[in-house]
Amino acid sequence: MSGPPREIEALIALMARLPGLGPRSARRAALHLLKRRDSVMAPLAQAMATVALTAQDCRICGNIGTTDLCPICDDPRRATGEICVVESIADLWAMERGGAFKGRYHVLGGTLSALDAIGPDTLRIPDLVERVRAEGITEVILALNATVDGQTTAHYIADTLAPLDVQISSLAQGVPIGGELDYLDDGTIGAALRARRKV
Amino acid sequence: MSGPPREIEALIALMARLPGLGPRSARRAALHLLKRRDSVMAPLAQAMATVALTAQDCRICGNIGTTDLCPICDDPRRATGEICVVESIADLWAMERGGAFKGRYHVLGGTLSALDAIGPDTLRIPDLVERVRAEGITEVILALNATVDGQTTAHYIADTLAPLDVQISSLAQGVPIGGELDYLDDGTIGAALRARRKV
Repeated sequence: MSGPPREIEALIALMARLPGLGPRSARRAALHLLKRRDSVMAPLAQAMATVALTAQDCRICGNIGTTDLCPICDDPRRATGEICVVESIADLWAMERGGAFKGRYHVLGGTLSALDAIGPDTLRIPDLVERVRAEGITEVILALNATVDGQTTAHYIADTLAPLDVQISSLAQGVPIGGELDYLDDGTIGAALRARRKV
Repeated sequence: MSGPPREIEALIALMARLPGLGPRSARRAALHLLKRRDSVMAPLAQAMATVALTAQDCRICGNIGTTDLCPICDDPRRATGEICVVESIADLWAMERGGAFKGRYHVLGGTLSALDAIGPDTLRIPDLVERVRAEGITEVILALNATVDGQTTAHYIADTLAPLDVQISSLAQGVPIGGELDYLDDGTIGAALRARRKV
């Protein structure tokens, strides 16, 4: 029988590889694009082609930009002697949205995972040690996710950096702003209690 | 602060306009693409550009293809004198996956809706009347969704075609194959009972 033409089938197959889209929602998204060929589809194709051509990983921190040095590593005002270690670029963007950190970043590109055979070398941890030595870093802030893998990786990095003359810290754990105790898990409440502060 | 570069922001904004993707999942999908620039992003940009350039609505039935006549309208074996009326191209593809219908289609492009100011002319209903007259159609099968809007539209089309010498039918309503009575709504069970058949 006659389904979508070959070109559209190929488009649907590629869109189904995006996270959050399955075969059915990829078909729906493709039809949405087909209805808006000039207003959405052509600009989207153009934007993707542009990014595919111009995007480059920063050679120092692993952030993404359009040159081989990202805007943060390129900005001398951010040479504060602090490095914030994050798992992914999404986490870097989240930290930047927070707007509280004025230093530079180091993107690991994942977490240590024996199951997936991800070791320290895959994660750019040697690069981090090298940066701490070469850039005169005074503090490394571990902003890894509060998951088992994230915390394992944080411990490993803390051990690796221990011989160097650098302060190591990690994000505080506790009640999120706007959080209601009744909806928080026991682990968070316990952590918040142990880290309680004098008022 | 320094978020994603301008080109990537533009890409995320465009992806957030796809159905099923919000701002956060669009960012996630964009990062997924950024990690796979050569294997996914470039081919996807290419596929979109190709489809944006080549896709055309069929001038007869409203299906989408790469010429001004879709493969179904172009296939003389499908001139069975039957027209299946569907709301959208997605429904047409669903009918074709079923593989049971051998005739041609007429894609309305939506349903009548007073709220959204969608009238018969927007829905290509006059084109349908014209086709029934000109192509010597013997049966019009209304395969509209079993929603209020879909059924209103079906009634309107049946009334409009009534003066013409053409049989009008609609898809049977009843228990879906594999369906369990306990999980079916009352309306479906009622419809299946009223349309019961002798064994």
